Amino acid sequence: MVQETDTKTMPRDETHNLIASDRVEGTAVYNRDGEKLGTISKFMVGKRSGQVQYAVMGFGGLFGMGERDYPLPWNALAYDPEKGGYVVDLDKDRLKDAPSFERGADPSYDRDYGEQVFTYYGIVY
Amino acid sequence: MVQETDTKTMPRDETHNLIASDRVEGTAVYNRDGEKLGTISKFMVGKRSGQVQYAVMGFGGLFGMGERDYPLPWNALAYDPEKGGYVVDLDKDRLKDAPSFERGADPSYDRDYGEQVFTYYGIVY
Repeated sequence: MVQETDTKTMPRDETHNLIASDRVEGTAVYNRDGEKLGTISKFMVGKRSGQVQYAVMGFGGLFGMGERDYPLPWNALAYDPEKGGYVVDLDKDRLKDAPSFERGADPSYDRDYGEQVFTYYGIVY
Repeated sequence: MVQETDTKTMPRDETHNLIASDRVEGTAVYNRDGEKLGTISKFMVGKRSGQVQYAVMGFGGLFGMGERDYPLPWNALAYDPEKGGYVVDLDKDRLKDAPSFERGADPSYDRDYGEQVFTYYGIVY
């Protein structure tokens, strides 16, 4: 969806390096087998650094009810320009136990929470 | 505005380091004299790097008509937690000649454009 919107206003080859913060939502996330796990809800960005720390992925639910958000450490993601989405090394089964929260009930993203999330994905916090 | 929204769902001290991509819009931008120049329209983020390259600042216009967007190199901004906004070393007068575009008519953000913008603000591209 994001790619389509981009293409309307500008040539794809010029802009595929950048994404606007208001077009982040809806970008697909796949596992390494090419299976779609969910879509990006939002990025959590360092206010000072300007570096994305988490890509928050929405998953599950029906018609927006019961959907849960999974904060993924940025370094656990690889961008795949062919797919126009992100690839994460994560089986669908592992998502069951991954740190997550009900849509809208965002965590504090404090240090303890960060360590918990990053450790789950084997990334140094 | 962003600070207020954050405070509703989580304690400010825990979350002031991160901003959600869907709450970027509306963050104030000041010059070094504390004068408000405009508000953030969006961030332009590297899809691979996760690094914000531009903070796009909206300025001018009335009731959303005629507003222009000014892409500011991320490194030209400093976050001021007291103000809950960004400070940029830029006189209001200099904005007149700064690279900008009509709201919605986004540039290609190709290499030439990047060099033009970064050079204007004295930042290495």
